[in-house]
Amino acid sequence: MKTTHTKNLIAVALVGALAFTTTIAHAADPLPSWNDTAPKKAIVAFVEKVTKEGSPDFVPVPERIATFDNDGTLWCEQPMPVQLFFALDRVKALARQHPEWKTKEPFASLLKGDLKTALAGGEHALLQIVMATHAGMTTAEFEQIVKDWLVTAKHPKFKQPYNECVYQPMIELLAYLRANGFKNFIVSGGGIEFMRPWADKAYGIPPEQVVGSSIKTKFEMRDGKPVLVRLPEINFIDDKAGKPVGINQHIGRRPVMAFGNSDGDKQMLEYTQGGGGARFMLLVLHDDAAREYAYGPAKGLPDVKLGAFTSALYEQTKKDGWTVVSMKDDWKQVFAFEQHSEQ
Amino acid sequence: MKTTHTKNLIAVALVGALAFTTTIAHAADPLPSWNDTAPKKAIVAFVEKVTKEGSPDFVPVPERIATFDNDGTLWCEQPMPVQLFFALDRVKALARQHPEWKTKEPFASLLKGDLKTALAGGEHALLQIVMATHAGMTTAEFEQIVKDWLVTAKHPKFKQPYNECVYQPMIELLAYLRANGFKNFIVSGGGIEFMRPWADKAYGIPPEQVVGSSIKTKFEMRDGKPVLVRLPEINFIDDKAGKPVGINQHIGRRPVMAFGNSDGDKQMLEYTQGGGGARFMLLVLHDDAAREYAYGPAKGLPDVKLGAFTSALYEQTKKDGWTVVSMKDDWKQVFAFEQHSEQ
Repeated sequence: MKTTHTKNLIAVALVGALAFTTTIAHAADPLPSWNDTAPKKAIVAFVEKVTKEGSPDFVPVPERIATFDNDGTLWCEQPMPVQLFFALDRVKALARQHPEWKTKEPFASLLKGDLKTALAGGEHALLQIVMATHAGMTTAEFEQIVKDWLVTAKHPKFKQPYNECVYQPMIELLAYLRANGFKNFIVSGGGIEFMRPWADKAYGIPPEQVVGSSIKTKFEMRDGKPVLVRLPEINFIDDKAGKPVGINQHIGRRPVMAFGNSDGDKQMLEYTQGGGGARFMLLVLHDDAAREYAYGPAKGLPDVKLGAFTSALYEQTKKDGWTVVSMKDDWKQVFAFEQHSEQ
Repeated sequence: MKTTHTKNLIAVALVGALAFTTTIAHAADPLPSWNDTAPKKAIVAFVEKVTKEGSPDFVPVPERIATFDNDGTLWCEQPMPVQLFFALDRVKALARQHPEWKTKEPFASLLKGDLKTALAGGEHALLQIVMATHAGMTTAEFEQIVKDWLVTAKHPKFKQPYNECVYQPMIELLAYLRANGFKNFIVSGGGIEFMRPWADKAYGIPPEQVVGSSIKTKFEMRDGKPVLVRLPEINFIDDKAGKPVGINQHIGRRPVMAFGNSDGDKQMLEYTQGGGGARFMLLVLHDDAAREYAYGPAKGLPDVKLGAFTSALYEQTKKDGWTVVSMKDDWKQVFAFEQHSEQ
């Protein structure tokens, strides 16, 4: 008995010691899902130099602003942007209230499951779909619709809720920056009201730190209650040259760090770098067809319409000293839901 | 010698003790410039109930959003809004580059010092003045122009820099709310870029917590540098029904507390109250002609065009349970620069 008891005690002590060592190791490495390659080293070196008092590159806490694109930078944007999946599901859900859609494009094709024909109308068709599904309700009602949809909708490849198809290395990066006095903002071409309902839980980014595209809203009394009604009219497109405009409008400071993954983020990174002094610009390259998707067309990867990382942008990263993350080489883990043999 | 020395020691000890007592008294009263009348009691009672864990009215820290109008709520807006003084001074400063203004209204009258004729053109004239003085430069250049102007310009009545004509009781209130986990936002009809350069120093409100009216900006490369250029085109008017829209756009949450002083703040207070649960709405009534200005027309005070606290709004405060602060009765001190007999 005594021997067994002693053995058990030793086993418990060993497990405890192992758990403790693991905790220490994790505490020492704020970015465990990143491989020890150049991008991780560059991030850590930058954060250390701008947070070290007395350093020539020291940045005071209030000025530590980091901006993140969302689609393709914080969460998966393939095979098409999540907000488009949402819009299509809404068209189906609303079809009963719109019998005229049966014969009206782009809705007729959509309802037949023919996405290609539906979107053949280009920007105009897309706008019709967005307005039909994103306007007409109050902001509170829309928030609830988004939340309800996320509970049931699943990513077609990963079979997980969309708001769990977020990149684990970026979640760690957000936490690491926050722990170092940074205020993280989303600056996305996606809808601001589409991201706010879940961004806090997924990223630790509160509604007031989300910048995005928007439609107009109107204050009115509905049943004696003051509400904001969403109107079928574009207010602001927070993409490309719109991103620096959105940053200035919402934040009023140039970011110190900026993160993106496509041509839509080029001007945000340029604007960040243009602030002078210590600045950090990073782009995620999706070159991991096995664990996520592979698209460019930079580095000969397949071309995509939305979220393209062009060869010209890739050349600019070299010229301007921007960091490029290879999802395949630089990320140990992509999603939190992945199973790991080493863990 | 020894007696003198002892006396000195006692004197030093007494002064020290007094200073200590004063410190304690101030620490105990976070709102020393407020009289112990109903508004102060209502503010403190509200903050205590929403910050007390387990209270049915408890509000979690991230949801503690307080919004403040600026003109007439945080700083003096009479005899006319500060931004108008700024615009007029800019017209004079820019006149040499615009010889055509000598014969072109509203500039011709302005340059002759005839403000009444200049503004007789109403909104259109005002817009011309604003665009001529607020657009055409980069955002960074405009920020510097505002900062430079504040160094030399003085309020005509108080002979102090405009950014020191801020209400001491409101400065204390901002600090008190901040100490209780609130995030304070300015939500003003004034220009967002006109307030940001000095709001942090004056109020402890950083640029990203300033919401205001704006003109459009455009991202472009100037001399190879990425900048935002201010365009002579209205982007957003953050006044009246625009305030809830601006709040939703920037903050994405309903405020828990809202502070204003005029008809321009009515919808912001309604929107705040409409959130349900514990909410606090307050309006400042300027009834102190001796220490500041007296204007309404509520309670028979003189009517003003900008910043009017109408009788209808005053009736609404009673119906909706909003707190009204009488500057004369409820504020012990109005400005920080005042001399006090009791201190």
